[in-house]
Amino acid sequence: MREALIAAAFDLFLERGFEQTTVDDIVAQAGVGRRSFFRYFPSKEDVVFPDHERCLKDMTAFLDASADTDDPVLRACDAARLVMRMYAENPTFSVERYRLTKQVPGLRVYELSVVRSYERTLASYLRDRFTVRGDGSLRAEVIAAAVVAAHNHGLRAWLRTDGRGDAAEMVGSALDYVAGAWTSGQSPGAAGPEEEDDVVVVITKRHTPMWRVVREVEAGLQGE
Amino acid sequence: MREALIAAAFDLFLERGFEQTTVDDIVAQAGVGRRSFFRYFPSKEDVVFPDHERCLKDMTAFLDASADTDDPVLRACDAARLVMRMYAENPTFSVERYRLTKQVPGLRVYELSVVRSYERTLASYLRDRFTVRGDGSLRAEVIAAAVVAAHNHGLRAWLRTDGRGDAAEMVGSALDYVAGAWTSGQSPGAAGPEEEDDVVVVITKRHTPMWRVVREVEAGLQGE
Repeated sequence: MREALIAAAFDLFLERGFEQTTVDDIVAQAGVGRRSFFRYFPSKEDVVFPDHERCLKDMTAFLDASADTDDPVLRACDAARLVMRMYAENPTFSVERYRLTKQVPGLRVYELSVVRSYERTLASYLRDRFTVRGDGSLRAEVIAAAVVAAHNHGLRAWLRTDGRGDAAEMVGSALDYVAGAWTSGQSPGAAGPEEEDDVVVVITKRHTPMWRVVREVEAGLQGE
Repeated sequence: MREALIAAAFDLFLERGFEQTTVDDIVAQAGVGRRSFFRYFPSKEDVVFPDHERCLKDMTAFLDASADTDDPVLRACDAARLVMRMYAENPTFSVERYRLTKQVPGLRVYELSVVRSYERTLASYLRDRFTVRGDGSLRAEVIAAAVVAAHNHGLRAWLRTDGRGDAAEMVGSALDYVAGAWTSGQSPGAAGPEEEDDVVVVITKRHTPMWRVVREVEAGLQGE
């Protein structure tokens, strides 16, 4: 029933346009009653993003299951990968939705609120993990925003391949970029030999002996 | 006329609630005709954020006037300060709006689209400045998101002081944090001596001789 409603809605949205399609049109096409629609979807917008609620729950559960030994930034990146996988599971649907969303301002706004809910979930997790830091709250918000931006950058690149590219690789390399900037020993700038500003970033604790710093720098220089 | 409409709208929003107030109520309170309202504001939501359109234009002009010698990340941070100043110019209005927005889901969604338009403007500027880099587009999106997140973190902290704090200082220190993470020689983690994870970040070009790296690390360790 739920799948039939989603399929009917997308057929109509692509055929007539989102604004021109009513909930009555969708239920007539799916051959079910109006009440059935609202049992599954609070609004017409929700049928366009049917799996985000489940994905947000999965993300929350994944973050709640984080061990103290997990690097918080890497864990947040892994949590973002859950969203990528939801898109990659159904490339045709994801690409159709991408095209539809580009055409309908109301859906873009709805999508912003979906994206914001992921960002808040990541920020909340990071804030808990950074409580010992004086800058914990700010750091959590900034890293959550960076993770979401990188994820979306990789995801859009994948959607532009019409879902034919490797979503895990495209989103993964974008997330690695952020992880590199906010975890130790990796460089946010060093993505390849063609780069102009080929830099190495070393993050070390104050009071670390100089010989250890040098060893870390050398490891960073040889790392790629 | 425009100011009178904004004042009338806010009186009614705070008294009756946003949803319960119609455009007809606002024009009756302001003593003007309905057409006058729509001459200034496309919708009821727009009257809540009356200065964002101007601010977005100011930001675009400020970024267009950037010199090649400007550090792009610092310029983007300065552009974000224009938004902070718009809020700080009128603390009472900004604080009232903050309270109103927290209560009205429709306004929060509208605000998300406003925030997103600033983020796109910053990302577009950074992308142009980073074209020589292989990772330019990703870097632009990530830094724009980080700048916006930091700005909003500082702004919310200021709004929570009921506009009595120093907005320039609160937003400025949050932006400095991001600038420190993405420009050379500064540390995103080193905000003060009370921190647990007191770290030093050294960013250096690959192929830099080790003695120069050591000198930079030493300078970083002594820097604070």
